[in-house]
Amino acid sequence: MSFRDLTACLPDWVEGFLADPDRVYASTEARMRLVVELSRLNVEHGTGGPFGAGVFETETGRLVAPGVNRVVPANCSIAHAEILAIAIAQQKLQSYDLGSEGMPAHELVTSTEPCAMCLGAIVWSGVRGLVCGAREEDAQRVGFDEGPKLPDWVGALEQRGIAVTRDVLREEARAVLVSYKETGGPVYNGRKSTR
Amino acid sequence: MSFRDLTACLPDWVEGFLADPDRVYASTEARMRLVVELSRLNVEHGTGGPFGAGVFETETGRLVAPGVNRVVPANCSIAHAEILAIAIAQQKLQSYDLGSEGMPAHELVTSTEPCAMCLGAIVWSGVRGLVCGAREEDAQRVGFDEGPKLPDWVGALEQRGIAVTRDVLREEARAVLVSYKETGGPVYNGRKSTR
Repeated sequence: MSFRDLTACLPDWVEGFLADPDRVYASTEARMRLVVELSRLNVEHGTGGPFGAGVFETETGRLVAPGVNRVVPANCSIAHAEILAIAIAQQKLQSYDLGSEGMPAHELVTSTEPCAMCLGAIVWSGVRGLVCGAREEDAQRVGFDEGPKLPDWVGALEQRGIAVTRDVLREEARAVLVSYKETGGPVYNGRKSTR
Repeated sequence: MSFRDLTACLPDWVEGFLADPDRVYASTEARMRLVVELSRLNVEHGTGGPFGAGVFETETGRLVAPGVNRVVPANCSIAHAEILAIAIAQQKLQSYDLGSEGMPAHELVTSTEPCAMCLGAIVWSGVRGLVCGAREEDAQRVGFDEGPKLPDWVGALEQRGIAVTRDVLREEARAVLVSYKETGGPVYNGRKSTR
């Protein structure tokens, strides 16, 4: 590894699972069902933590980029599901701003409410909406840490023009977290310093 | 671009500039001087925004990984200097936790105080110290945005065992920000949504 390259990869099974690149997820629930399934499959395949995300075109529901948690297998504490989805979407559209003029509006759908890092990343990404499944307290109850996050993070996003929708399929999303804990998945929480 | 790859690169000039991989920066000021120089050279070469960072072994002062801002050229809003330095250090040491047992302590040195995203990333990285040059208000005065950040972010880091040192060569670090603005460098601040 030289100083030059920063690489993190989605696991191999994702491309097969999302074989049709033009697949469209019309409703908010359909989008959430997909990212919760990504979180579940990530655990089932042993390829990372129980978190999934996706960047979608808000109007059409076209999936632009998926993400799953890859912290442990990629040796990268930055590799949260939301970060991968945002970065891969930006590479695909060749823009650091998913809210550029002339571009359709984008939203980030995530199986669990974002941690402190991902909250900041969402603001810089250019998405105009955030849709969340499980609540931050659902992740905390399993032992994951949300980090130093503004108490009114929802208000902070909305002030910046990012609409927040919570509790979409919360029970389904939470069930993946709970089953991850019950089957002894590692909650790599060194000094409460990773998620 | 498939869904599989997330790649961001340091610019080519960095490897030449840091030709000796065992270079040691004994004092805090020497470490800051290096990352401020990285921020300055990044502007001079036109390879990104006026921000530099580095992960160092706290005791020895050995540079583990540098970082510079690459948001615009890499089409990646995640590619802040701190994120690159952390991710590259973790790849180099093959660990998602720079504070793992048996590892020397690491610190992150950054030319400007971290934004909301990087603040979260620092907590997950495993570094035990953060050293800052320019203040957040110095970046804000040039037009950059810090994002939805806890007002007492210093206290939040220290509570988690991350020592914070501020104002190291602040004037030198600030001068790079000011000169960037004066020479008309883009403050890509779409809807106050990127830095």
